[in-house]
Amino acid sequence: MTLRELDAVVVSNPRTFRYFSDHFPLLSVSPTRAWYVVIPKSGVPIACIPSIGRDDVLAESWITDVRTWSSPNPEDEGRSTLVNVLNELEVRQVGWESGREMRPAMTLSDYDAIRRALPGVAWLDAADLIWSLRAIKDESERSSIRAAIAAASAGFAAISAELRPGMTERDAARILTLSALNAGADAVPYLACGSGPGGYPSLTRAPTTRALHDGDVVSFDLGATVDGYWCDFNRNYALGTPHPTATAALRALSDVITAARAITRPGTSVATLRTTMETTLAAAGLPPSTGHGRWGHGVGLDFTEPPSLSTHDGAVLQPNMVITLEPLIVGHHTDPRLSLIAEDMLCITDTGHELLTTDQ
Amino acid sequence: MTLRELDAVVVSNPRTFRYFSDHFPLLSVSPTRAWYVVIPKSGVPIACIPSIGRDDVLAESWITDVRTWSSPNPEDEGRSTLVNVLNELEVRQVGWESGREMRPAMTLSDYDAIRRALPGVAWLDAADLIWSLRAIKDESERSSIRAAIAAASAGFAAISAELRPGMTERDAARILTLSALNAGADAVPYLACGSGPGGYPSLTRAPTTRALHDGDVVSFDLGATVDGYWCDFNRNYALGTPHPTATAALRALSDVITAARAITRPGTSVATLRTTMETTLAAAGLPPSTGHGRWGHGVGLDFTEPPSLSTHDGAVLQPNMVITLEPLIVGHHTDPRLSLIAEDMLCITDTGHELLTTDQ
Repeated sequence: MTLRELDAVVVSNPRTFRYFSDHFPLLSVSPTRAWYVVIPKSGVPIACIPSIGRDDVLAESWITDVRTWSSPNPEDEGRSTLVNVLNELEVRQVGWESGREMRPAMTLSDYDAIRRALPGVAWLDAADLIWSLRAIKDESERSSIRAAIAAASAGFAAISAELRPGMTERDAARILTLSALNAGADAVPYLACGSGPGGYPSLTRAPTTRALHDGDVVSFDLGATVDGYWCDFNRNYALGTPHPTATAALRALSDVITAARAITRPGTSVATLRTTMETTLAAAGLPPSTGHGRWGHGVGLDFTEPPSLSTHDGAVLQPNMVITLEPLIVGHHTDPRLSLIAEDMLCITDTGHELLTTDQ
Repeated sequence: MTLRELDAVVVSNPRTFRYFSDHFPLLSVSPTRAWYVVIPKSGVPIACIPSIGRDDVLAESWITDVRTWSSPNPEDEGRSTLVNVLNELEVRQVGWESGREMRPAMTLSDYDAIRRALPGVAWLDAADLIWSLRAIKDESERSSIRAAIAAASAGFAAISAELRPGMTERDAARILTLSALNAGADAVPYLACGSGPGGYPSLTRAPTTRALHDGDVVSFDLGATVDGYWCDFNRNYALGTPHPTATAALRALSDVITAARAITRPGTSVATLRTTMETTLAAAGLPPSTGHGRWGHGVGLDFTEPPSLSTHDGAVLQPNMVITLEPLIVGHHTDPRLSLIAEDMLCITDTGHELLTTDQ
């Protein structure tokens, strides 16, 4: 903040709120109220929250300075509470969640009104600053991510044993979800499923009522959470004997991940990781993906976080980043509509990396 | 839109996207990409989405006009795709999700940049218009809400049978969650738990490791979803024999709901509902709640939706609204920190209402 000459940073996204307070405001699942934390350049963070959340923040957060308003109040949903704090801090430059991959939980009307109420203040984009902090996971964060992965892996083990033709994608997804929850996941907020002979029509579709057939390849891409931290990885299963080109393509995706892992260490740029993956896939004679801008990303309190494993992203790997490697094939085989994807999660260490998703 | 002289409405919140497209973009759980629908005054809706979502929208939505960009692209995450469509439509006044209880899934930087790119356009708040449409549930929406309630009720039946001293709040919450999922809920994204002798310290706290004791009152406030639609209601359980004042207070809350139901019909204002509930509670000699601005709200694709059962809300009940009645007591008994709450869900009919949460 000193480097960027920021007097304060204001955040409201519930996951960023959690990051700076150690408290996730459960009620933020409702869009009615705003939940702000003001982080001053010096001094302690100040929570500006609806009064209904006051006791929860004091009980569960390290924040002790809590300002409240009676909510709901559509006329002034915390706006003046926040403005008063910023006036008190005599801020001149404030950073907030305006940029890349930020989802502040405030209304656009309030965004405009807060700026109008403080005409002397310069408002800067603190997205890169916030993401640079959140990208590096401490031991407690890594432990939660590991727990999410363990629960997901147990779910994958269960569906691997139970998957058979005749089940619908939804049947199978329900087994996977319940198994992951039984194994300790707090929630499974993301589960994409694709199935088909030799590949699947989408990488991102919710499970459908399609019945699985002998010869299908079935992918489950699972986002489970433990204590607010996500995992994100997929597994592919073959029912019976899929088309040989699909088997070869899945082996190629596995080789692509192996090739990327060989250079996954501090100092490697994510652009290089991406290029290495593309080169390896091309060397196997498989078509490049088009229109899919990244082959992996960060994971943490959000399902996806910067960096993106894309040639456009300038990020360089650092110790304690958690990322996915997610190479994909779009339009392989005889059908240009079919895709295949593989995804694993890694934690960058001081000298290399650790593969977190080790069940395969 | 004609009444408000809007040439188009732009939405990006994933639940509003779903409302206007019949497709929930699963990947919108990631904050990386924006997902827009443009609803023109005349003509068909146009989706402006990342190319990775194109096939999903065409497969699952009624939208046929889909414009895409290659994402992630932090430099232009769909902004110019959206601006091009608005230029094509020759819009002069555009409504968007800027106001009350709206959570557009776009960055604040894009919000500013889109307005700069279209300097001749007037941007208006379409929050009330969007909420007025979403507030009235059609048969399919009501059916999904009923299914969510049924799954939650099965969960409540299970925990009611299994609840006993020594269990922690988290143990009990896990039983409730898994039972609701086994009974058909797609997810249980909200579960607040409170427990204590005669009341609980918070209405909105995630389950803790507190062990339940004989004499406790335990509340679970459950938000489960089916096909994207929520339920939101709570149940209170007594372990052994709670303090007589707590038992009396829970009976009073039940009477408050009965009194409110007596006037719950089309034409009744939500402010009157609120006043009736407060009056009934006061007549029972119980203290008014302070700092809790509403005693119920709408429910649908969002966990909470307008209207708020508050004296500040001008809404009047209409057929096919789904609302909660949620009277509460803060600081009853001998301990000012303890609360009690009751919550049921109702659907407004042509002549009155139907109680949707009928298990009690």
